[in-house]
Amino acid sequence: MVPRLSPGEVAAHLPAAPPEEAEDLDRILDDYEWLIEPNVTHWNHPGFLAYFAITGSGPGIVGEALASALNVNAMLWKTSPAATELEERVCGWLRDMLGLPAVFAGHINDTASIGSLLALAAARHRAAPQARERGLVGGAAMTVYCSDQAHSSIDKAVMTLGLGLDQLRHIGTDDAFRLDVDALRTAVEADLEAGLRPIAVVAVAGTTSSTSVDPIAAVAEVAAAHGLWLHVDAAYAGSAAICPELRPLLAGWERADSIVVNPHKWLFTPIDCSVLFVRDPEELKATFSLVPEYLKTGEERVTNLMDLGIQLGRRFRALKLWMVIRAFGVRGLREAIRHHCALAAELAGRIDAHPEIERVAPVPFSTVCFRWTPPGTPEEQDAANELLLAEVNAAGPVHLSHTRLAGRLVLRVAIGNLRTEREHVDHAWRLVLEAVDRLRSGAGWRTPPLRDREPGSTLGER
Amino acid sequence: MVPRLSPGEVAAHLPAAPPEEAEDLDRILDDYEWLIEPNVTHWNHPGFLAYFAITGSGPGIVGEALASALNVNAMLWKTSPAATELEERVCGWLRDMLGLPAVFAGHINDTASIGSLLALAAARHRAAPQARERGLVGGAAMTVYCSDQAHSSIDKAVMTLGLGLDQLRHIGTDDAFRLDVDALRTAVEADLEAGLRPIAVVAVAGTTSSTSVDPIAAVAEVAAAHGLWLHVDAAYAGSAAICPELRPLLAGWERADSIVVNPHKWLFTPIDCSVLFVRDPEELKATFSLVPEYLKTGEERVTNLMDLGIQLGRRFRALKLWMVIRAFGVRGLREAIRHHCALAAELAGRIDAHPEIERVAPVPFSTVCFRWTPPGTPEEQDAANELLLAEVNAAGPVHLSHTRLAGRLVLRVAIGNLRTEREHVDHAWRLVLEAVDRLRSGAGWRTPPLRDREPGSTLGER
Repeated sequence: MVPRLSPGEVAAHLPAAPPEEAEDLDRILDDYEWLIEPNVTHWNHPGFLAYFAITGSGPGIVGEALASALNVNAMLWKTSPAATELEERVCGWLRDMLGLPAVFAGHINDTASIGSLLALAAARHRAAPQARERGLVGGAAMTVYCSDQAHSSIDKAVMTLGLGLDQLRHIGTDDAFRLDVDALRTAVEADLEAGLRPIAVVAVAGTTSSTSVDPIAAVAEVAAAHGLWLHVDAAYAGSAAICPELRPLLAGWERADSIVVNPHKWLFTPIDCSVLFVRDPEELKATFSLVPEYLKTGEERVTNLMDLGIQLGRRFRALKLWMVIRAFGVRGLREAIRHHCALAAELAGRIDAHPEIERVAPVPFSTVCFRWTPPGTPEEQDAANELLLAEVNAAGPVHLSHTRLAGRLVLRVAIGNLRTEREHVDHAWRLVLEAVDRLRSGAGWRTPPLRDREPGSTLGER
Repeated sequence: MVPRLSPGEVAAHLPAAPPEEAEDLDRILDDYEWLIEPNVTHWNHPGFLAYFAITGSGPGIVGEALASALNVNAMLWKTSPAATELEERVCGWLRDMLGLPAVFAGHINDTASIGSLLALAAARHRAAPQARERGLVGGAAMTVYCSDQAHSSIDKAVMTLGLGLDQLRHIGTDDAFRLDVDALRTAVEADLEAGLRPIAVVAVAGTTSSTSVDPIAAVAEVAAAHGLWLHVDAAYAGSAAICPELRPLLAGWERADSIVVNPHKWLFTPIDCSVLFVRDPEELKATFSLVPEYLKTGEERVTNLMDLGIQLGRRFRALKLWMVIRAFGVRGLREAIRHHCALAAELAGRIDAHPEIERVAPVPFSTVCFRWTPPGTPEEQDAANELLLAEVNAAGPVHLSHTRLAGRLVLRVAIGNLRTEREHVDHAWRLVLEAVDRLRSGAGWRTPPLRDREPGSTLGER
């Protein structure tokens, strides 16, 4: 599932120069089959349990293929009415599926990195509207808050917007990796005291490391008390809210100014498809809208999606999401998410019953973090877990990833692919147990290093 | 080709609530066929001559469909080696096809809006590296330069980066809509005099209104003299450089720090596919790189594409570009571009021979700007051209767009679709002549307004 390659091995088989003459599509597809397909990391494999496991489902693939055949650019309503209106409607469907209030309007971006950037740009604009023209120089320093578990895209947004990483406060978290609201309040007050201008707080619903959920309602209180823009990064866990019984985990998110949810993460839609919900689209428009003459249409009552963000060009991403929601039905989507959560709960139970393997975070959704705890120093344990991860992934066909929680290296099993069944999680767990046995007994490294590998590596001869 | 719809007509046929139960794919595709497909604007139609005409070619569509089936996220080399290495190689192919020096390294973004934003972010970082941590507050005001014909994405980038629109100097242009280099030099010197910090200049190769090309070599001199980052926005016309005889038009772009070229504009690749070439990728990395624990791989020698920009997630866009370049061959791509340029030159000749229709800009590539000049005030002429455009588009099946040049409303014919042949351009020209005759004779409006339209509008009953 993960190709066994050294860097440069694929490139070495790609001609240095492009072909002068046209080639048959069959020949190109042959090359695709032997050189490309075996040498991607197979995110769509049911044993892929790394990062956040995702799914390019059949209906989503059909939608993407149709969109690329239509090749519309829905920058303006006029440049593709159905694309604009389907995007608005499907985002409305998703909002209702998630139980969010009708006030939220959604639009689709490529990634949550962009969605969060747009949200923080709007927060900056709300606090300092004159900066659109005058720039940030000469204004007050603006501060942004998130937990030490928030995604690096928040850091990138703060950098990009010119606010400066020094003005991003990474607030500490509790033992379940949730933002410490008292510490948030203290930090905001200290910044106000120091003459800084707090503008936004990001609460995370489903952190990337452990899928912890910040206490959003309490964060919303702080935001309201100090006039902060509340952005909720629910890129992963937002989709869980289509299950009413999981919605309480996200309580308070309905008070946000903006929320990002990625159907390309846990709603079975091929990347890219990230929905940004905002309470007031006019704030996004005020931040970004600029209409040059060649894009003026005289239409007054329409949504021109280019006004809501940075990118002028936009693909017809709503088509695949529409097809996915209809092809599975809300019930089918709920069942898939519940199934993933049940598989994760079952794995968590096995871990909890194992004397030497420790679960290191709650499992609110479908991701389980754990570590092996052989005798030794914390550093030795980290090294042991690194070996364990390498062993499991080398055995395959499963793929896990790691993170660091409370300073310690831990393994993650993230369940999110539609075709992932109990057998895949069982297999991963069996590989963990076998590798622990082998490592404990000192039998050591199972897989030959790359340079000695046998025929059968993913890069063969044509 | 452009649906005849009032805003909301498509939405009115989309259920307000998502389906609870799964629906058959056949039924979804039926709805696609009657409701969606007839009601998009058909950018892929050979009579589409508006904005910049584009092509979702067959090989590109196949590439996109395969990419969505693989559903890889090539944020790290490890998360999809073939996707990363193919992207590097294909961007290298394109660089060589364009005749750019080997020092340039390319990567693929969704849009030129993002490519130009990344370039200007890197320019900001070069001028004020401390701003990454400290932010812009308290530093010197930084100024950016482009012509009054540059794309609005430059304005959006300057706003997003916190530099402030007031610090973007829209330099005047000559009678061929090319940046006035003397005015640029004067503006830079005046800003220096005023204690501001000039950081970047954007030269455009193929402006959106008229496809004019700034005198890039002379702009490069000014950039070199004052240490400005030179970004070349060649989103449209960059592709023309695959034809050696057209390359001199872009002379000087090889001195740029960054260049954006969109294969999804004039290289027959479905949107989105925008290549950003940079002279030194380390400058982009210094601007954007942030590696959280869960993305650390221990790999040292590899390119991790997430380090080069804002977005963490990235689709496997190189696949479609690879398939397009191979399926057409460089020769086939050149022939298509030459054919488009020849069609445009022929149309320009007809315009020049017409006593009442005036060509308002040179035609260096495949886009022709013209206006009808009936007797009357300039405002009356503008109104006449607006009517003319409406008439031509209502007659169809061609679609033109408008812009404003030297204050006057003008029509544009942009030739860029692979299936656009002489007959389509001839038809558009015939419609222009017919409409001019009709309007001159006072016969007036040909097409009934929307509310009176006949059966046969694009939105029928199912």
